[in-house]
Amino acid sequence: MTEKNRYCVIMCGGCGSRLWPKSRTQMPKQFIDFLGTGQSLLQLTVARLKGIIPQENIIMLTRSEYVDLVKEQVPEITDSQILCEPAHRRTGPGNAWAAYHIKALNPDAKIMVAPCDNIILRVDEFRESVEKAFEFIEHHDTLLTFGVKPTHPETRYGYIQQGREIDSDFAMVKTFTEKPDLELAKVFVDSGEFYWNTGIFFWSATSIIKALNDNAAKVSPKFREGEGIYGTDKEEEFIKEIYSASQSISIDYAVLEKADNVTVLRVDGIGWTDLGTWGSLYDVSPKNHDGNVLQGTKTMMMNSHNNIVSTQGDKLVVVSELDDYIIADSENALLIVPRSEEQKIRTYVREVKATYGDEYK
Amino acid sequence: MTEKNRYCVIMCGGCGSRLWPKSRTQMPKQFIDFLGTGQSLLQLTVARLKGIIPQENIIMLTRSEYVDLVKEQVPEITDSQILCEPAHRRTGPGNAWAAYHIKALNPDAKIMVAPCDNIILRVDEFRESVEKAFEFIEHHDTLLTFGVKPTHPETRYGYIQQGREIDSDFAMVKTFTEKPDLELAKVFVDSGEFYWNTGIFFWSATSIIKALNDNAAKVSPKFREGEGIYGTDKEEEFIKEIYSASQSISIDYAVLEKADNVTVLRVDGIGWTDLGTWGSLYDVSPKNHDGNVLQGTKTMMMNSHNNIVSTQGDKLVVVSELDDYIIADSENALLIVPRSEEQKIRTYVREVKATYGDEYK
Repeated sequence: MTEKNRYCVIMCGGCGSRLWPKSRTQMPKQFIDFLGTGQSLLQLTVARLKGIIPQENIIMLTRSEYVDLVKEQVPEITDSQILCEPAHRRTGPGNAWAAYHIKALNPDAKIMVAPCDNIILRVDEFRESVEKAFEFIEHHDTLLTFGVKPTHPETRYGYIQQGREIDSDFAMVKTFTEKPDLELAKVFVDSGEFYWNTGIFFWSATSIIKALNDNAAKVSPKFREGEGIYGTDKEEEFIKEIYSASQSISIDYAVLEKADNVTVLRVDGIGWTDLGTWGSLYDVSPKNHDGNVLQGTKTMMMNSHNNIVSTQGDKLVVVSELDDYIIADSENALLIVPRSEEQKIRTYVREVKATYGDEYK
Repeated sequence: MTEKNRYCVIMCGGCGSRLWPKSRTQMPKQFIDFLGTGQSLLQLTVARLKGIIPQENIIMLTRSEYVDLVKEQVPEITDSQILCEPAHRRTGPGNAWAAYHIKALNPDAKIMVAPCDNIILRVDEFRESVEKAFEFIEHHDTLLTFGVKPTHPETRYGYIQQGREIDSDFAMVKTFTEKPDLELAKVFVDSGEFYWNTGIFFWSATSIIKALNDNAAKVSPKFREGEGIYGTDKEEEFIKEIYSASQSISIDYAVLEKADNVTVLRVDGIGWTDLGTWGSLYDVSPKNHDGNVLQGTKTMMMNSHNNIVSTQGDKLVVVSELDDYIIADSENALLIVPRSEEQKIRTYVREVKATYGDEYK
């Protein structure tokens, strides 16, 4: 396969509400330098693709309110590389649009789908796996997922169960499972059959469009009607017309859990984390002798352990007698919640918005 | 006694560090509207004296860094009514200076000493007691303390044990006790002999000067040397010379615990609280159904009880699964400490200063 057929769709339209109040609707997690590397998660994602995917083949799938942030953070991206969702409809419709759009540009396109809230510590190993994945889909009509060999029974991730082995790297996918409880996660890990679902996918434009047609009756037809329009100056208007009417559904539910040609590339040792929550940020961050993660802050922690403290600027934080909490302070909002409740933060933010209005989202 | 002999020394030079980070070295508690009444503690203190003590007989004992705040908040006070301590030496030297200064203005002066971090809910009853106190010291050579009948075994206050009764209001003082533990506080309250030490004192200028001479050898002589200078334009220079060399000691230790002519006016039902700590602010503030005190903030408290939350401006606070904490947020500092540890806050602030510098005091 020639490199010019390789595309990457970077999913950068999310709002990252579980990392509130650092991640805000106006400035969600993908645009933030969460690790103190000097680069936002989006910039790290783009940097990882360098040399693997032609720069002009990177497509940003985002929302209109983030277009300026995308351009500012990735100035080499041109306007034509930005697909702007007129409404939030989860990843199903987004991937459908991206596939039709890219197919119009290049019918032989092979597409990588990349979330931009991943942390990948071992980039060389990651890039090798990407090469393998593109190789594989060149020769197979398949929807390929990146599955990471679990290092511990994480309850924060979805799991992929492998079926029949194709070779030492690839296997058929038997089932997808949503976030399990700890008991089940342990069973998964012990079985050796389960992999973390990274949300990184590889497919040819034709394969995913076929799979959408076969499996996603409430998503696909609308987009199919646009053939001939994609890549023309009528595309934007067409998308605006159909998008909101499309079902809001993830690509996992809409296609991957139904299709029978789904495969997994079993990846090990790329240091992958999905930075979806404060807990995941805690996990990947350096800890002091009390197990506290202190993000760029002036702190005094007295008899306090295993907390993550995140503040802005020169803010000083004095904490006493507190274990296992998230303490996250932004200019107009302060969050103090047990780490075990991180999944509820999304709900809290929704309530915050309902009670106090948009300025606190 | 004619009213013109009545003076009040308002002690407003403290730094209120146990109410950090709301109370700051640059803006200590006495200058803050802690109760949301529209008036600072200092302004409330001055207002309580109206009609009892001539305005021109109110003396502010403070520090140079607070002179502008005093003038701004109590504009009717003239420069000559402000005594500016050149160094912090606790209340012993302060009261010695005030007594000599006032005696020079009026040898018949009767002085009330008023801290300005008291909250007094029933002002009419308080003013009646002040009248009684001035009456009493007119006819007795005594150092009179305001003792409040305890409503519960508070461990935050010092206690006065009464001795021989003089009449239904007044009694001799037998002992002063520093903050007791809960066990001892219960014994005190049950005995019926103990009263909260309010730090409000009444004495004639001559009585306190005599008591200083008799009991406070490390304080008194320096000040005595200045007789003839007080009330003249050399007073400021003289005070600058001697003040730092004076022992740093409270008037309680220096005089009251030693003198044998100390009496107590037993006061009941004036709704007195010493607003020294976050706990005392919690106690006097209205609570919601979960026992939380939420000071002027936008809050979402989930399964959280008996906390005090104090923030500035429009800051939103989201708290989950937390009981009995102080959460106090200021522009550059955030405190999260159990209410039971409020007495340690002073130490924390000292460490904060040592570690991060004066801007966080």
